[in-house]
Amino acid sequence: MSPDAPIAIIDSGIGGLSVVRALREKLPHERILYFGDTARTPYGWKSAETVTGFVRQIVQYLRGYDPKHILIACNTASALALATIRKQFSDVAISGVVEPGARAAIEAAGAKAFPLIAIMATEATIWSKAYERAIHRRRHHARLLLRPAPLLVPLVEEGRSEKDPMVRLALRQYLQPLIARGADVLVLGCTHYTQYKSLIAQQTAGKITLIDSAAACAEDVARRLLAANLLSGNPSGGLLRCFVTDGSPRFRTLAAKFLGHEPEPPTLVTPDQLHLIGEDLRQLRISAA
Amino acid sequence: MSPDAPIAIIDSGIGGLSVVRALREKLPHERILYFGDTARTPYGWKSAETVTGFVRQIVQYLRGYDPKHILIACNTASALALATIRKQFSDVAISGVVEPGARAAIEAAGAKAFPLIAIMATEATIWSKAYERAIHRRRHHARLLLRPAPLLVPLVEEGRSEKDPMVRLALRQYLQPLIARGADVLVLGCTHYTQYKSLIAQQTAGKITLIDSAAACAEDVARRLLAANLLSGNPSGGLLRCFVTDGSPRFRTLAAKFLGHEPEPPTLVTPDQLHLIGEDLRQLRISAA
Repeated sequence: MSPDAPIAIIDSGIGGLSVVRALREKLPHERILYFGDTARTPYGWKSAETVTGFVRQIVQYLRGYDPKHILIACNTASALALATIRKQFSDVAISGVVEPGARAAIEAAGAKAFPLIAIMATEATIWSKAYERAIHRRRHHARLLLRPAPLLVPLVEEGRSEKDPMVRLALRQYLQPLIARGADVLVLGCTHYTQYKSLIAQQTAGKITLIDSAAACAEDVARRLLAANLLSGNPSGGLLRCFVTDGSPRFRTLAAKFLGHEPEPPTLVTPDQLHLIGEDLRQLRISAA
Repeated sequence: MSPDAPIAIIDSGIGGLSVVRALREKLPHERILYFGDTARTPYGWKSAETVTGFVRQIVQYLRGYDPKHILIACNTASALALATIRKQFSDVAISGVVEPGARAAIEAAGAKAFPLIAIMATEATIWSKAYERAIHRRRHHARLLLRPAPLLVPLVEEGRSEKDPMVRLALRQYLQPLIARGADVLVLGCTHYTQYKSLIAQQTAGKITLIDSAAACAEDVARRLLAANLLSGNPSGGLLRCFVTDGSPRFRTLAAKFLGHEPEPPTLVTPDQLHLIGEDLRQLRISAA
C-alpha cells in the first residue's frame, strides 16, 4: 500500500464533511474521496440491516480506488455497520467515528471515579448501544446519559443557523435534562451537531466538557496512518473528490457550510449503479474517472 | 379487471397512511396494499431521477399483485415521478395526490376572481412546480404562494404532538407569512401535515380554507373506481396489508398515529430485493405471500 493512495470517507449524506474539514486541517496533503449517500439519507432511524446493506455497497464501490484507509464518518453507520463491514472486508483498514468519540470522552472525564457522560446522537445510534459498549469497555464505572436528538439533523439540513429560535428551542429541550442531571462530558455523537457547537457550548455554559466526534475521529485517522507509515508526503497531493447518490444541487450548497467552501461538482453514482458488480462495476468507475 | 382486485398505495414511508385512513373510511370493503419505502425515506428534497427510480421499482413489485388501481400517495413522488411512471406503465391505472389537491383548492377558492392559494409542501414538491401547473391549468388567474415546510415531517416522525412548543413555533413561522399576505386557501401538500391539521386550523383562525390533500385524494380514487365500475362489493373484503423496505419496529408505532390503530406486522421487501426482476421477483412475491 502506498502513502499516496487516497483516504475514502463514507457518510450517509453531508454530515461527514465536518470530519473531512477536520482531517484536511490536520493532514492537508492527503487525497480524500468522500462518498455521501444522499439518495438514501438519513440513516439515523433505520435498521442495522438496511444501513449495513447501504454501507456494504459503498465500500465495494470505493475499494476500486485502492484506498489506504476507509473511514465510516457517520455515527449511525459506525454504530450499526462497522463491525460487520470490517469482518467482510478484512483486507482493508476500516475505522469509524464512535470509538474515537468514546475515547475522547473518557479522557475528558479525567480522574473522576464515576463520571457522568452524556451522548447526544440519532435514535439508531442510541438504540445500538455502540457508545455504551465503547465507553464501558474502557471505564467500567462511567455513568451514561443517552439522548436521541432527531430534530437537529433536519434543522441543520434546512440551513437554520444558531440564531434561529427553532434551533435555540430544540437545543434547550435536548440539553436541559443533561445539565439538570449534572453531566460532566457531552459527546456530540452525530457529525451534523458540530454546526451548532458554539450554541451548545453557550447553552451548557462551560458546565459540561464537549466532545466533537468529528474532531476526535480526524485525530484517530491521523494516528492510524502515522502508525502504519502511510501519511502522504506529497505537498501537492491534497485533493477532495466527492461522490453522491442523488444529483440534487442541494449537496454543494449544504456542503459549503460544513467544509467552509463549495466543493467541486460531485460525481453521481446512483443507487442502481451501486448494485452493479464485478466487471460492470469496474466499467462504471472508469467512466466516472 | 375484477372489482375484488386490490388497490395499491405507494408512499415514501409513513405519511401515505393518512390517505389509507381516509380511503378506508370512504370505502371500507376494499383490499389495500400499502408500500412504504422506509429504507430510503424521506423523498422530500431528493431529485426527480432518484425518486422516479425508487417509485419505478415499487410499481414493478406491486404489479405482481394485479392491482385495479395504483395510487402514489406521497406528494413529492406524485410531483416528481407520476408523469414518467404513467407513461412507463400505461396498462394500469395510476393516480397521484397533487391533482386532487389542486382541484379541491380551486373549488374552495370559489368565484373569487384572483384567489390567493397557498401551498405548503416539501422542498422537492415546491421546486417541481407540480401544484402551480395543476392549478394554473384550471384557473389561469389564481395567485400562488409557495411555502416549503421541511421541518414538519421530522416533527411528526419524532412523534411530537400539537401541544409541543417546537411544533407550535414551527407552524407559526411557516403560517405567519401566509396569513399576512391574506391567503384564501391553504393546501396541506404533504400527507404528514394532516397530523397537525387542528393546530393549523387554530393558528389560521378560520381566515384560510384548509385543503387536506389526503382527504381530497381518497375522494378522487373513490370517484375513479366508481367511474370504472371497479368498486368492491364484498363486505368482508376490507383488508390492509403493509410492505416496508426497512424492518425497524418504528413503522408500526408511527403507523398507529396515522391509521388510528396499529397495523398488522408489515412484510419486509429490502432495497436489494427490489432490484430483482422477472422470475426472481415472482419468487420473492410468492415467498412473501
